[in-house]
Amino acid sequence: MPELRQEPITKGWVIIATERSKRPSDFPIRQEERKGGVCPFCKGNEKMTPPEITAYREAGTRPDEPGWWIRVVPNKFPALDSNSRETNLKRNYFTSMAGVGAHEVIVESPEHGLSLEQHDLVQIQEILRAWRDRHNAAISRSPIRYVQIFKNEGAVAGASLEHPHSQLIATPLIPSVVEHELHGAGGFYMESGSCPYCQMIAHEAASGERLIAENQQFISFCPFASRFPFEISILPKRHQASYSGIDESMIKNLAGIMKETMQKLAAVLPHPPYNLMLHTAPVGYADSPYYHWHLEIMPRLTIVAGFEWGTGFYINPTPPETAAKYLRETALN
Amino acid sequence: MPELRQEPITKGWVIIATERSKRPSDFPIRQEERKGGVCPFCKGNEKMTPPEITAYREAGTRPDEPGWWIRVVPNKFPALDSNSRETNLKRNYFTSMAGVGAHEVIVESPEHGLSLEQHDLVQIQEILRAWRDRHNAAISRSPIRYVQIFKNEGAVAGASLEHPHSQLIATPLIPSVVEHELHGAGGFYMESGSCPYCQMIAHEAASGERLIAENQQFISFCPFASRFPFEISILPKRHQASYSGIDESMIKNLAGIMKETMQKLAAVLPHPPYNLMLHTAPVGYADSPYYHWHLEIMPRLTIVAGFEWGTGFYINPTPPETAAKYLRETALN
Repeated sequence: MPELRQEPITKGWVIIATERSKRPSDFPIRQEERKGGVCPFCKGNEKMTPPEITAYREAGTRPDEPGWWIRVVPNKFPALDSNSRETNLKRNYFTSMAGVGAHEVIVESPEHGLSLEQHDLVQIQEILRAWRDRHNAAISRSPIRYVQIFKNEGAVAGASLEHPHSQLIATPLIPSVVEHELHGAGGFYMESGSCPYCQMIAHEAASGERLIAENQQFISFCPFASRFPFEISILPKRHQASYSGIDESMIKNLAGIMKETMQKLAAVLPHPPYNLMLHTAPVGYADSPYYHWHLEIMPRLTIVAGFEWGTGFYINPTPPETAAKYLRETALN
Repeated sequence: MPELRQEPITKGWVIIATERSKRPSDFPIRQEERKGGVCPFCKGNEKMTPPEITAYREAGTRPDEPGWWIRVVPNKFPALDSNSRETNLKRNYFTSMAGVGAHEVIVESPEHGLSLEQHDLVQIQEILRAWRDRHNAAISRSPIRYVQIFKNEGAVAGASLEHPHSQLIATPLIPSVVEHELHGAGGFYMESGSCPYCQMIAHEAASGERLIAENQQFISFCPFASRFPFEISILPKRHQASYSGIDESMIKNLAGIMKETMQKLAAVLPHPPYNLMLHTAPVGYADSPYYHWHLEIMPRLTIVAGFEWGTGFYINPTPPETAAKYLRETALN
C-alpha cells in the first residue's frame, strides 16, 4: 500500500510508492564520458573566463593567473544582471521588472574531474568559506533580497561543464520556495514558540531511522517526506537562520559531515548526478527565530513528469528509511 | 537585459534570460530509437495488461480482446491504490495517510507509434471523451478530491512505454499546484469580481503577440510568464471551471485546436518530448466563478537544476513572444 506523507514545514505531500519500491541497483546510472576540449575553469586557462571577482590564491600571484585554489568569476551567460539596480515594477496588465541580481561561478578546485567528496577536508572548508564570503558580499548590495547557492553535478542534473564548480544567483525578490518555508515555519513558531527545524533535528536524532551521519554540530538524514530517492538534508544542530553566521568551528564540522555523507552516497550509488541547494534566510530574516538554514541534496535518479508538474505531488519509489539505512550502514574505507 | 515576469494567478516569477536567447534549432532533440520487444498496449496483446476498466470498442467484441479504439486499464504499478478508502490521518510527530486514490492508463490508439497530432480528428475527440468519462467516474468516488490527467511523451519527459497513452491519477487531497491556482484566482475574483483566466484570454486574444491558434471556442498561446521554452496553454473561451462540463461541440473544437497546435509544435521542433497536463477544478469547485480549466503543454528542452529546485524561479531562454511567433507562422501542409 502506498503512503502519502506531508512535509511538516511547507505542508507539501509526497507519495511513497511501495508498489514501485526500488533499491540502489534498480537505478541505472550512466557514467558520463569525459568531454574533450579545453576547460575554461582549469588552472592555466584563466583568460577564458570573464575577469575574476575574487580568488583564494598564493601570496604574490596575480588575478587571472595560476596560483589560486578557489576562484570566483561572473557567469558568462548570467541569468540576472549585476550592472543595473533598476527595480521598478512595470505593470501593463502583466507585472514584470528588469532582471537585476548577480550570477557567479565558484570554481572549487584548479584540478579537473574531482567530485565534492574527493576533495580533502581543507579544500571543502575553503569551498564553504567561499560560499559564505560570496553570500555575504551579495546580500550587502541593494536590491538583493535572496542569495541562492547551488551545485549541479552531472549533465543529467544540468551541469554544462564538468570541472568542479558551484554557482550563486542573487535575486531582487524572495523566491516562492523560500517564501513557503518562511510562511510554514513562521506559522509553526507562532503556535508553538519553537523553530520547526530544531524540532525536526531533535526528532530525527532521537528516532535514528532516517539518520545518515552526525557530528558535534551537524546532522544529515533522509527527510520523512523525501520527494526523491536518496534525498538528503544537512542541518546545523544549533539554531541559526542564515548561513552568513557560520563560524570557523562550524565550517570544519560541516566539511566533515558533507564529505562523509557524499562519500556514502557515491558508495551506494555509483557517483549519481545530483543538485545541491543551500537554503538560507533572505535579507531581513538573519535573526529569525523560526528559519534555519540547511543543505538539500537531490540525486537525480527519477524523471519529474506530468503528474508532478500538474500537482506538485512527488512519487518516490524508495522510502527514506530504506535509503538512510543503505547510506548509514555503508562502510567507508 | 534579462527580465523578471510574474505569473498573474499563482504570482510565481520566471526569468526570461535574454543573454541566453535560444531559437528552435538551438535545442538538440535526440530522436529516440524504437524499443524492441512486445508492447502491452498494442492490439492483440490485451492479456498483457490488468483487465480493462472500460473501452470504446466495436459492438459484439469482448473485453480484453481486440475491437477497441480506446482502452482504459489500471496502471500495473499504481502510484495510489484504488482498493482502499481509508483516509485517516496518522499523526505521530509527522503526518501521513494511506495512499488511496486511483491510477489508470488511457491507451489512445490500438496502433503503436502515433503522436497525438498524427491521430485523425475523430480519434482525438475520442481521447478527449475518454478523459471526460474517466474524470467523471473518478470524482464520483469517495474519498477522491482531485483528478490529474496527464500525458508524458518521450523518455526524457518520463514516458516508459512509447505506445500512445495518457494517464489519470486521482488523489484524496487537493494538490499544492491546484491549491495555489485556486488561492490566486479566488483572491483576484474577490477584488475584481471576474475570473482571472477569462481576463487573460481576452488580453491574449486582443494583443495577439503570444497567440498560436484560435477557433470558435478555444485559444492557444504561450503564457506571458512561460517557465519553459515553447510552453503552451490551451483554454476554453467561455468560462468553465471543470473539464466535466465539456460538451460535444467543445470536444470537436478542442480536438481541432490541439491537433493544430501540436502539429505546429512538431513542425517547429522535431517531435520534442513533452508533458501535457489537464488542470481542472477539484471536487466541490465545479461551479467556481474564478477557476477555469486549461491544458498546459511543456516541451522538455531545458534541464531543471539546482537554482530552480532551490527557489521555484525558472530560467527560460526563449521569450514566449518569440516562441509564439515561430509556432503561429509555421504553415501546416
